[in-house]
Amino acid sequence: MEQLYSYQQLYTFANNLFLAIGCSEQNADLATKVLLSADLRGVDSHGIARLTGYVRLWEAGRIKANPQITTVYETPSTAVVDGDKGLGLVVAPAAMQVAIEKARQVGTGWVSVKNSNHFGIAGYHAMMALDNDMIGIAMTNASALVAPTFSVERMLGTNPIAVAIPAGSEPAFVADFATTTAANGKLEMLQRKNQDTPNGWVQTKDGLPSTNANEVRNGGALLPLGGDKEHGSHKGYMLGSVVDIFSAILSGANYGPWVPPFPAYIPMPENLPGEGIGHFFGAMRIDAFRPANEFKAHMDKWIQRFRAAKPISSEQQVVIPGDPERAMEAIRMTSGIPLLPAVVNDLSALGATYQITL
Amino acid sequence: MEQLYSYQQLYTFANNLFLAIGCSEQNADLATKVLLSADLRGVDSHGIARLTGYVRLWEAGRIKANPQITTVYETPSTAVVDGDKGLGLVVAPAAMQVAIEKARQVGTGWVSVKNSNHFGIAGYHAMMALDNDMIGIAMTNASALVAPTFSVERMLGTNPIAVAIPAGSEPAFVADFATTTAANGKLEMLQRKNQDTPNGWVQTKDGLPSTNANEVRNGGALLPLGGDKEHGSHKGYMLGSVVDIFSAILSGANYGPWVPPFPAYIPMPENLPGEGIGHFFGAMRIDAFRPANEFKAHMDKWIQRFRAAKPISSEQQVVIPGDPERAMEAIRMTSGIPLLPAVVNDLSALGATYQITL
Repeated sequence: MEQLYSYQQLYTFANNLFLAIGCSEQNADLATKVLLSADLRGVDSHGIARLTGYVRLWEAGRIKANPQITTVYETPSTAVVDGDKGLGLVVAPAAMQVAIEKARQVGTGWVSVKNSNHFGIAGYHAMMALDNDMIGIAMTNASALVAPTFSVERMLGTNPIAVAIPAGSEPAFVADFATTTAANGKLEMLQRKNQDTPNGWVQTKDGLPSTNANEVRNGGALLPLGGDKEHGSHKGYMLGSVVDIFSAILSGANYGPWVPPFPAYIPMPENLPGEGIGHFFGAMRIDAFRPANEFKAHMDKWIQRFRAAKPISSEQQVVIPGDPERAMEAIRMTSGIPLLPAVVNDLSALGATYQITL
Repeated sequence: MEQLYSYQQLYTFANNLFLAIGCSEQNADLATKVLLSADLRGVDSHGIARLTGYVRLWEAGRIKANPQITTVYETPSTAVVDGDKGLGLVVAPAAMQVAIEKARQVGTGWVSVKNSNHFGIAGYHAMMALDNDMIGIAMTNASALVAPTFSVERMLGTNPIAVAIPAGSEPAFVADFATTTAANGKLEMLQRKNQDTPNGWVQTKDGLPSTNANEVRNGGALLPLGGDKEHGSHKGYMLGSVVDIFSAILSGANYGPWVPPFPAYIPMPENLPGEGIGHFFGAMRIDAFRPANEFKAHMDKWIQRFRAAKPISSEQQVVIPGDPERAMEAIRMTSGIPLLPAVVNDLSALGATYQITL
């Protein structure tokens, strides 16, 4: 059975843990907020369930608690940020802030990041743009779990893309999705329940179709969005590739099969071509294109028209990207965040090591 | 049986037709080159087979042969371009050139376009960036053929995205794909051959799964990349939505179900919220992020590593985006471009009207 924890309980626990590994108060607070935004929005795989993973990376010396995050190259609308091996949860907001400042100056800002680590959910960073009346874009590469179309080899991460677009009276449009048929988190949920996947999610180590949720552990791979060639998997592969290139080749991070793994017990790939993992952020001022009130009025009209699109079934209307996560956040802020027993046990053990009670 | 025509034959025919409808020599030449780049690259649905469609739009007064293309709003890194009802084949390169000039000045350039028409293949425009050592991005909305996840209503076009990325000794990476499971052109090929589609390409007017290649004519719809919710169609829907918003809400073009149809015999939607159809272009100088030679060396390494990824079958290695189209272009430039009898008949009839011989 799942147990419910209040946001404040989980905030205190995670914040104390980040402090315990040496993060400054500011960094601990930010890392905690970014991490828990995943739990609030219902992306359970990317939230507090990963806290132990981040701590293990710190224990292994792969993450610095207080990095010196610096801009190492720039033009008026671009920058490369060096994350100095920091927690991606801290590096990413700093880099997105650089993009936002550049957008304030010249209309748009684009920042590629090297030497970082996993940054939580992409949507958090993209949404930082919203309060500035800007469109926000966030993407990241990740360790290789995905086989390109026609290959058995894991060459790409689930490489998510998030796009946040402000509206007027309507809530913002927020798309946030892995460039695979299904995110790894969905696979993990099926593994816990001992259930099969639908077809098109994974393949065996020989590249054959499979519905075994544990296939990746057997040397298999996740599949790019589309699943197979006939259903457009080459498009998912292209999207994941663009994320990899923007995040890592522009910045000087590692790419493709060289992206460092998240689990600290997996050895680092050899002959790394870059530093750490890479992210890419964009911010576009909406009034760099037209008056903000005009943009927002049309965005409202777009959202209202799509929400009213004739549904297949009266029980399920068309979803505006961002609506389900916003609804989930409202529920979990008041009713609490459910954690699986395995996650509770894992966090309790972690807390015991650092003398912090969940 | 298909008939082969040399590039020069088709160039002369199309160029003369554009001149016949009043295009300047410069506009006719550019429109012809953009149009035929689709035939050369093997995207037959977007090439000379559409020439009649463009001429019909001109005959209906929906396209101007010599538009006054103007920048109506700008910042150092952004612009909105008004296409003045011009041929998209001419408007799009002009707008992409604005993006390139801005990238030269401040690192990146981003241009949203209103009051345009269909622009041929997205890849052509994205690839304009390559000779400038820039990454090029091109997207466009299009008349609604695609139902969002959970809907029976056609709300989005096939809204393609193209990304062109320069390399060093390797040829450029060029991704160019519709945000649907299959582009409409692939459906048209099956229609001509009287063949069924794979599952996940189309649905009936009631939103049921279908494999009838003619389903869209029966009131059905194309499906977003992913096909159904279980296979990630909400991701294809989100991608197509982002293309629509960047192309039209940023610029003031029409969006969603209001995008003007390509076939001139279909009446315009009522109560249009904008002007014409919309595009979005981006250019990013690679040396706005790191020295160009470093970027290109790593891009070469990326391409070589992916090309060498272990294949499922020794008969089909992993494809680098852009490779198949480049190979096709080399073949068709020397051996000719095959046209279906229906296309030849259509062009011959068109030529007869304007006293131009194919």
